[in-house]
Amino acid sequence: MSDDFARWSFSIQQQMEMTLGAVLPPANHHPQRLHDAMRYAVLGGGKRVRPLLVFATGDIVGAPAERLQYAAAAVELIHAYSLIHDDMPCMDDDAMRRGKPTVHVEFDEATALLAGDALQTAAFEVLAGHKVCDEAADHVQMLRLLANAAGAAGMAGGQAIDLASVGKALSLPELEQMHILKTGALIRASVLLGSYCGEALPAPARERLDRFAKLVGLAFQVVDDILDVEADGATLGKTPGKDAANDKPTYVSLLGLKEAKLHAAVLEAQALDCLSEFGDKATRLRALAHFIVHRAF
Amino acid sequence: MSDDFARWSFSIQQQMEMTLGAVLPPANHHPQRLHDAMRYAVLGGGKRVRPLLVFATGDIVGAPAERLQYAAAAVELIHAYSLIHDDMPCMDDDAMRRGKPTVHVEFDEATALLAGDALQTAAFEVLAGHKVCDEAADHVQMLRLLANAAGAAGMAGGQAIDLASVGKALSLPELEQMHILKTGALIRASVLLGSYCGEALPAPARERLDRFAKLVGLAFQVVDDILDVEADGATLGKTPGKDAANDKPTYVSLLGLKEAKLHAAVLEAQALDCLSEFGDKATRLRALAHFIVHRAF
Repeated sequence: MSDDFARWSFSIQQQMEMTLGAVLPPANHHPQRLHDAMRYAVLGGGKRVRPLLVFATGDIVGAPAERLQYAAAAVELIHAYSLIHDDMPCMDDDAMRRGKPTVHVEFDEATALLAGDALQTAAFEVLAGHKVCDEAADHVQMLRLLANAAGAAGMAGGQAIDLASVGKALSLPELEQMHILKTGALIRASVLLGSYCGEALPAPARERLDRFAKLVGLAFQVVDDILDVEADGATLGKTPGKDAANDKPTYVSLLGLKEAKLHAAVLEAQALDCLSEFGDKATRLRALAHFIVHRAF
Repeated sequence: MSDDFARWSFSIQQQMEMTLGAVLPPANHHPQRLHDAMRYAVLGGGKRVRPLLVFATGDIVGAPAERLQYAAAAVELIHAYSLIHDDMPCMDDDAMRRGKPTVHVEFDEATALLAGDALQTAAFEVLAGHKVCDEAADHVQMLRLLANAAGAAGMAGGQAIDLASVGKALSLPELEQMHILKTGALIRASVLLGSYCGEALPAPARERLDRFAKLVGLAFQVVDDILDVEADGATLGKTPGKDAANDKPTYVSLLGLKEAKLHAAVLEAQALDCLSEFGDKATRLRALAHFIVHRAF
């Protein structure tokens, strides 16, 4: 990780901590337990990969940080809601997340359910409630895009496929389809939302960014599966080895560790290929793709 | 209930069944169990009070049904998601809803959680994905309005207060505050969304509609509490007497049955008062307020 990328990503993480803290309901405000749980789930942790993607894409269209922060917050709130609900006893039943107890463990199940629900709504409140682009029609398009990415044809659908696949032998295309929905849709939305926050972008350029995002999304998941096998809990901030324990199909269980690493490298190369036309404007997006594939947590 | 109101409300219910059926993901499409649960929760039942409010308000601004149906569907999807999650074991743990088993009973808890999540997203997909008003800026405003109504400062917040109030002695203002958020916010959103679907409305007129909606929302809840005591399960379509069994404060437990009925009548009169300037255009909105207060289920 270059010094410049490290400094930049740290500054965005700091910025996002402030933005998210400001858009979330205040801690000392009624109903306090709900607000506490929402803030507990969102603040003080996470790599903020999706916000980093929003900001790095913003470079390409010269988008101002005042807009990008809200697009980034919206995506991060959707991500945070999905983690709370995924961790609940009726889903993955996980007790640890980002190095601390999960929301239903720290609070209770009902509060976790409601906090997740309210965080999803908050994502749309934040995106609808701030100026994130020039044209109102684009603003509507951004809201549509986020909803498509999060819903039954996106993240929630992928979650449902994941749920149905426990203990089943998935083929590689089936596994990819699941991940394209479960994590890929929101990563794609991060890049596309960032691309709407600045100067107008010709459709072919946006399509190349979209393809970049799809490939990075897949690479992200392959690396996630590798880390679930190789990393320890302290580095990972969550319980490792859960996928194998839950008899869930992964890239590692399907391809083996060595092939999975090769697959991630190929996806990274294909992703970088999509950015060639953007020159220096895509420097951070390239660095971010590299970070996603070579991260250790 | 007048014949004309009965015919009209039946026609809207039929229309909404078609619209909701069309906007929900198809039943025979992967991931099928999620889609089945979403359709099970939304279709084939319910009074559709919120869609009726959207359509009746649409009369005042001459709004076309092609627009109103999507605004109405969005509100109904939020309502449906909240019912699924409210019924779950960690919340009210209810086994019956609209005369059939609740989603987590008919399917399972994980599917109920995901179906609720995906229905919330679907509400924003539907509202963002269709032409519901003339100006894109108003469209963004409608999305913001729905999100505000559903989130921590609206329905989800009211739910959290409800959760925290079990077994506690609430004052009448505290009970009202809870209901203004829990059911009132979405009823208000129904009226306001309807008011954006047609001709532009001067701000004072919209404020009167907003006040009407607040009062109707409260009346709706008072009557709900009365029916929880007076109606039987077959008529109600859900388990009656649950509030008392759960030691939840209600208008009836606070005011007594007779005073609660008087309170509902006063709220109805105040609500109707807000509609006086709209003349014949508000005929259906008046009939709907009457229906809400005098319904038997």
